[in-house]
Amino acid sequence: MFNGSILIGASERSGGEPFYAVHPATGAKGDVAFSNASPADVADAAALADAAFESFSTLSPDARASFLEAVADQIVAIGDLLIETAMAESGLPRPRLEGERGRTVGQLRLFASYVRQGDWLDATIDKALPDRAPLPRSDLRRVNQSLGPVAVFGASNFPLAFSVAGGDTASAFAAGSPVVVKGHPAHPGTGELVARAIAAAVKASGLHEGVFSYLPGTTNDLGGALVSDARIKAVGFTGSRGGGIALMKIAAGREEPIPVYSEMSSINPVVLLPAALAARAEAMGAAFVGSLTMGSGQFCTNPGLVIALDGPDLDTFVASAAAAMSGAAPQVMLTPGIHAAYEKGVAAIAGAEGVTTVARGTEPEGVNRGQAAFFSTDSANFFANPQLADEVFGSSSVLIRCSSIEEVVKTIADLEGQLTATLQMADGDEADAAALLPTLARKVGRILTNGWPTGVEVTHAMVHGGPFPSTSDGRTTSVGTLAMMRFLRPVCYQDVPDALLPPALQAANPWGLTRRMEGKLEASA
Amino acid sequence: MFNGSILIGASERSGGEPFYAVHPATGAKGDVAFSNASPADVADAAALADAAFESFSTLSPDARASFLEAVADQIVAIGDLLIETAMAESGLPRPRLEGERGRTVGQLRLFASYVRQGDWLDATIDKALPDRAPLPRSDLRRVNQSLGPVAVFGASNFPLAFSVAGGDTASAFAAGSPVVVKGHPAHPGTGELVARAIAAAVKASGLHEGVFSYLPGTTNDLGGALVSDARIKAVGFTGSRGGGIALMKIAAGREEPIPVYSEMSSINPVVLLPAALAARAEAMGAAFVGSLTMGSGQFCTNPGLVIALDGPDLDTFVASAAAAMSGAAPQVMLTPGIHAAYEKGVAAIAGAEGVTTVARGTEPEGVNRGQAAFFSTDSANFFANPQLADEVFGSSSVLIRCSSIEEVVKTIADLEGQLTATLQMADGDEADAAALLPTLARKVGRILTNGWPTGVEVTHAMVHGGPFPSTSDGRTTSVGTLAMMRFLRPVCYQDVPDALLPPALQAANPWGLTRRMEGKLEASA
Repeated sequence: MFNGSILIGASERSGGEPFYAVHPATGAKGDVAFSNASPADVADAAALADAAFESFSTLSPDARASFLEAVADQIVAIGDLLIETAMAESGLPRPRLEGERGRTVGQLRLFASYVRQGDWLDATIDKALPDRAPLPRSDLRRVNQSLGPVAVFGASNFPLAFSVAGGDTASAFAAGSPVVVKGHPAHPGTGELVARAIAAAVKASGLHEGVFSYLPGTTNDLGGALVSDARIKAVGFTGSRGGGIALMKIAAGREEPIPVYSEMSSINPVVLLPAALAARAEAMGAAFVGSLTMGSGQFCTNPGLVIALDGPDLDTFVASAAAAMSGAAPQVMLTPGIHAAYEKGVAAIAGAEGVTTVARGTEPEGVNRGQAAFFSTDSANFFANPQLADEVFGSSSVLIRCSSIEEVVKTIADLEGQLTATLQMADGDEADAAALLPTLARKVGRILTNGWPTGVEVTHAMVHGGPFPSTSDGRTTSVGTLAMMRFLRPVCYQDVPDALLPPALQAANPWGLTRRMEGKLEASA
Repeated sequence: MFNGSILIGASERSGGEPFYAVHPATGAKGDVAFSNASPADVADAAALADAAFESFSTLSPDARASFLEAVADQIVAIGDLLIETAMAESGLPRPRLEGERGRTVGQLRLFASYVRQGDWLDATIDKALPDRAPLPRSDLRRVNQSLGPVAVFGASNFPLAFSVAGGDTASAFAAGSPVVVKGHPAHPGTGELVARAIAAAVKASGLHEGVFSYLPGTTNDLGGALVSDARIKAVGFTGSRGGGIALMKIAAGREEPIPVYSEMSSINPVVLLPAALAARAEAMGAAFVGSLTMGSGQFCTNPGLVIALDGPDLDTFVASAAAAMSGAAPQVMLTPGIHAAYEKGVAAIAGAEGVTTVARGTEPEGVNRGQAAFFSTDSANFFANPQLADEVFGSSSVLIRCSSIEEVVKTIADLEGQLTATLQMADGDEADAAALLPTLARKVGRILTNGWPTGVEVTHAMVHGGPFPSTSDGRTTSVGTLAMMRFLRPVCYQDVPDALLPPALQAANPWGLTRRMEGKLEASA
């Protein structure tokens, strides 16, 4: 169960101006009064995280992996209460949340298996060359270790998979970082249930209580205090561009600046190439609307921009999309605030010069339902109205009609950084695709062909990241095993006696790692 | 030869208020009038770098490695003119500069070999799972590619190894980034000679001229314009804390913030443990002064802080160091400005409350000579005077006398981030060393035992980096093959047809890479 507590390590607290969950499907207020964490709570959580750092960051891969698995088990053990609570607080349907729980648990287990394997330590050894002339070379050994305690800000749109025990927390734990989560006020009961599951796993695993703390709250000041705390060494955030940039500024202005991994804003261009349009315009129109309206369009990878050569095949696509959209039943959005922002964003596009409204979803019944929207304009008008490229979070997309493939390339080249770009192509589109790919590769983190950008797999090869402003740091990903590298830094040991070296670097290789010896990977003997 | 030109790709230009080299050994001005690059030169260089990006970043590993080797060959081909010019402009002696040329050329060749090997591409493949339930999985393939054009600011203290063709340039080229160098005005002739060597290698290798440009100049505005240019996507800098932080602020304030890799300020604590002092205090004193005064102390890794338990053995160390220092002949410093800053820094420490001057080097004859200095205080006074922890660039070091190993740990824990820390230990010091290591590992990028921090090897395991303010980004190194990772970002390809994939990800593995398949490294068939 949950009671609105703040969790500082193994202790529970309450305090601050209470707040309540809002059930978006009805607009009703929940019963439980949630505490609002204070700067003193931040300081205590950060101090505990700092105290936990040494023991947690030096755990063996196996012990850390077992902890990740224990977190997964504890989340499963919450049972249906977790799904029911998340349904009420997010308005998301049961199958989606059951799937999301599966992804959350699977993500923790994937990190566990990758942590056990140990390649992320990047253990690298250049042995001493005592006879080198003119000077001998020392023995040099390098290994990755955690940056330090990490602050995580969960996303509203994934109350399980990108919130309290989501991708940022899982990857930070995997890297050996204690985590302090600032709970998202849109799903406080869900958040507390998961926080208690993590705390139970910390206890069951015999770890220092400071490995995890949970700070529910509604204020920007709470987040600011957390990012400002000198003991916090990195930040994971998924949310709005404004919120992410605010955290970047706080982090850059600290006495010791720290990295912020903000996943922010992306409109995920989809390019419809001519042969694909000729071959399957109608099917693509329906599939596009399926991707656009899934989950009320509340995905970072929602296809908010479609770019194509004008002509009759494009008209067929548009007609098919319009027909599909007119049958799309409005779904509950995550919060009244998100719904209001969606309505405002759609109204701004609908009212912009040179923009035609191609289709809307059916008229909503009930509160906080998102009515899908599809607009059309040409590329000259798109360039003249930069606000048309702003993300509207929800099922809203703009079609850009181009007159040549060169205009398509230019439209892509002038976009800001994006999480994804998609090429719809068929036989005959290869040359156009080849002409587009170099521009796409500079602009985005993931390039798809003949799929839709929604639906992010948690694997080794996934990149859920991209150039600014899609994220604050295009060198990274927030989904997939590579995400744990965000929280690591290399340390080199020069001529340090074997017994004092971290196990990953010891001569006996007690963790059985594949290590880089004189530049070449070498499997454990 | 050199004539003071600006090099924009394959073109030479001149312009701006001319400036002249100053020969620090005599204070004399050089003959050649050097151009001062303008914002228009910056824009042209950045535009060319942007135009070169696509072809240069997609070169095969072999072609890029051959280019790095061509740069090395062209530098060697300059011959003794390079050494003579660098001697006159830096005041550094011939053997040092010949060694530094060897390091510069060796560094380029090491990157070439590592580029050929291809592990840095981190090619990662998760194959499609068409039969997975409830939904099939797409084919996902990830590879690293260059971030984009890079701006490099060379260091004054390594006119070859960390200047125009130094570690930042070599690692950026290795990663596939075109480079625009802002030349250091302390060694403009040396810089231009090397710049011409790189330009010759670009031409001989048949590459786009925009792969390299060289902007000599004296103003902060020039550097600011370069970091502000929207086509520049990362910055490498080695120099002062003030300069590095200024570039960080410019980069963070851009419309698109970009990473800055500044290597700035470090005092490199050396801890003398009790058994080591008992066993070899006298020898350590002499060796310490050797490390401190080498190259007039103008190294990022100069041992500016010694921490030890007070007692008779420490007195022996101090007496030995004082004797060695009193025989240390002052050497020419790099510039009049660096010499003046050194004198000011030494005077500030000498005049600080509670600080004793233990020893000075011999009185200098001639201009711009650095007179070594060794001071002593206790840890309470060190904490009370934070300016004692500021880097004094040159042969200046402060001894902190502690009363317990706990006080040593606390002294380390309260320091800012450092490039290195050194433990001098002997049999019996193991427990103290083990107690110190976790604190050191959080504070520095490289931990040495029984050596001295000056002398940075260029290898795979080296870390020349560390937490702020030793660098702007403690996740990285500026020396060693790992440095190239600073200029790379991952891109994922989802269901992209084989022929359109980058070669690193194609089914036939044409570059013969070791790739990660379903999470496991797999050598080329």
